[in-house]
Amino acid sequence: MGLDLVTRLFCDPGDVVVAEGPSYVGALGSFAAYQAQVVHVAMDEHGLIPEALRAALRQARITGQRVKLLYTIPNFHNPVGVTLTVERRAEILEICRTYDVLVVEDNPYGLLGFDGQIYPALHSLDPDNVVYLGSFSKTYASGLRVGWVLAPPAVREKLVLAAESATLCPPTLNQMIVSSYLATYDWRSQIKTFQQIYRERRDAMLSALEQYLPPDCTWTKPDGGFCMWLTVPEGVDTRAMLPGAVAARVAYASGAGFYADGSGRRQLRLSYCYPTPERIREGVRRLAAVLESEMDLAHAYDGVGSGRLRIPGPRMP
Amino acid sequence: MGLDLVTRLFCDPGDVVVAEGPSYVGALGSFAAYQAQVVHVAMDEHGLIPEALRAALRQARITGQRVKLLYTIPNFHNPVGVTLTVERRAEILEICRTYDVLVVEDNPYGLLGFDGQIYPALHSLDPDNVVYLGSFSKTYASGLRVGWVLAPPAVREKLVLAAESATLCPPTLNQMIVSSYLATYDWRSQIKTFQQIYRERRDAMLSALEQYLPPDCTWTKPDGGFCMWLTVPEGVDTRAMLPGAVAARVAYASGAGFYADGSGRRQLRLSYCYPTPERIREGVRRLAAVLESEMDLAHAYDGVGSGRLRIPGPRMP
Repeated sequence: MGLDLVTRLFCDPGDVVVAEGPSYVGALGSFAAYQAQVVHVAMDEHGLIPEALRAALRQARITGQRVKLLYTIPNFHNPVGVTLTVERRAEILEICRTYDVLVVEDNPYGLLGFDGQIYPALHSLDPDNVVYLGSFSKTYASGLRVGWVLAPPAVREKLVLAAESATLCPPTLNQMIVSSYLATYDWRSQIKTFQQIYRERRDAMLSALEQYLPPDCTWTKPDGGFCMWLTVPEGVDTRAMLPGAVAARVAYASGAGFYADGSGRRQLRLSYCYPTPERIREGVRRLAAVLESEMDLAHAYDGVGSGRLRIPGPRMP
Repeated sequence: MGLDLVTRLFCDPGDVVVAEGPSYVGALGSFAAYQAQVVHVAMDEHGLIPEALRAALRQARITGQRVKLLYTIPNFHNPVGVTLTVERRAEILEICRTYDVLVVEDNPYGLLGFDGQIYPALHSLDPDNVVYLGSFSKTYASGLRVGWVLAPPAVREKLVLAAESATLCPPTLNQMIVSSYLATYDWRSQIKTFQQIYRERRDAMLSALEQYLPPDCTWTKPDGGFCMWLTVPEGVDTRAMLPGAVAARVAYASGAGFYADGSGRRQLRLSYCYPTPERIREGVRRLAAVLESEMDLAHAYDGVGSGRLRIPGPRMP
């Protein structure tokens, strides 16, 4: 909701939001609702690439596009799982200053680093040019729908008005529950417990991927958060493969949902936050089987054009 | 939130929303957020005037304005307190059909009629062209922020997607509380209790207005809901008068907030839902005193132009 209201404040139809590629699917939904265009900027294992960001902003300036926001998830990125290095944080803030672009820092997973490491918030490094979005959904209870926004005072005032017109006010009961929880419960220990649970599940997923997945698949190795990003071999379309996976009773999110431009069909997001390690292992085993049969199909179809092989049945290209 | 999402779905910048004049201030905030224009249509003691609505839609068609929605509060209108007669309901639906305008029916007070009367919802009379907004805020607990929308299926599907991009999902805890309340508690008796409480408060306000207010003031006499609409004598500006009222420790909402076009400065909204009858009586007494001193000032200023009288002090016109 914070992101939706920030977008409402800053974006007119046709304005540009720069975001990591891939980016959080819910954020893309908000940008689309306000008819903002999304320009994706590449990441590597150290997070958003500063030079790619600079090039995108330079290009936008040349073509006369109005870039209003950089939307970024610096810690344990959803869907990729990577984290922006400390060195790059200063650099990215500097670039956004230069190009007069407001930074929206989405940090739902920041406390869920598996070694307990806490990265400095972009907001703490440049409070006047960063709007910070926080959430209790991952560290306390998602069903309460309580989060917060830290913003420069002028933005905060406008956000309060925008929130008023959107919902009048947040549910006070839920805010009181969170407030009471933080005041009376040892929430720091609870977060340590969460870190441990999710680390075990991440480990279970990594070892299962190692064991079961066919060669030519690659995946990220997150140090925190909920998800990893899997790239499948050429010729497999993760969106087309999904119904087959669901039939085998394993689900994932196709990478295509995390791009505004329709790319990402060779990727998928795996989430390890909810299932037990045993179920994660079984899920990866099933996914591997679905993937292998899809790869067989893809190879068979490769042959169709050259007349070497025909596959009968309903799933013709 | 329902209204905000309906506006998001239907209104592009510059589109027109027709609404009663005056209309609910929160609704005007949503329309402004999406850069929709508001055209007000007059009410009388029987609610929205069908002929005035027809004239406004005809005029909009002539001038090429795109009217997307009629936003209406048919029962115990906020801020005016009047109720749309049953005869007019069919007529208004027919007019909106003719001009291809979707009706948004906002009905937070419908169960709070002081004689227990329930008016037929516009939605029940024309479900394909009416989006109905319901709320538990006035009949159970406003701090839960739970309400509902009844909409034609095609609109409902789009609303679900819009809600997802705005907030992901509603707070499930709050929905479960409401669901459990409705299933286990005698909420009908509770509503009868509310009707009685608010009727007493309405009566207290009406008799206090009768007793204390200067002549040349008029006000509505609501049969349900929370508020009445007071028109003050010529020359008094209810927005300018508000600081003086607050200094006398009585507050109201100036009528100007309930119009998108800046009118309503001779009106104000009085709400009797929260204070006890004793405090209502005391509040009206104080308001009357503030109003009388403002009328004295207004008369004194009337004389300034003719040179008969000058008022010293900081509040010069």
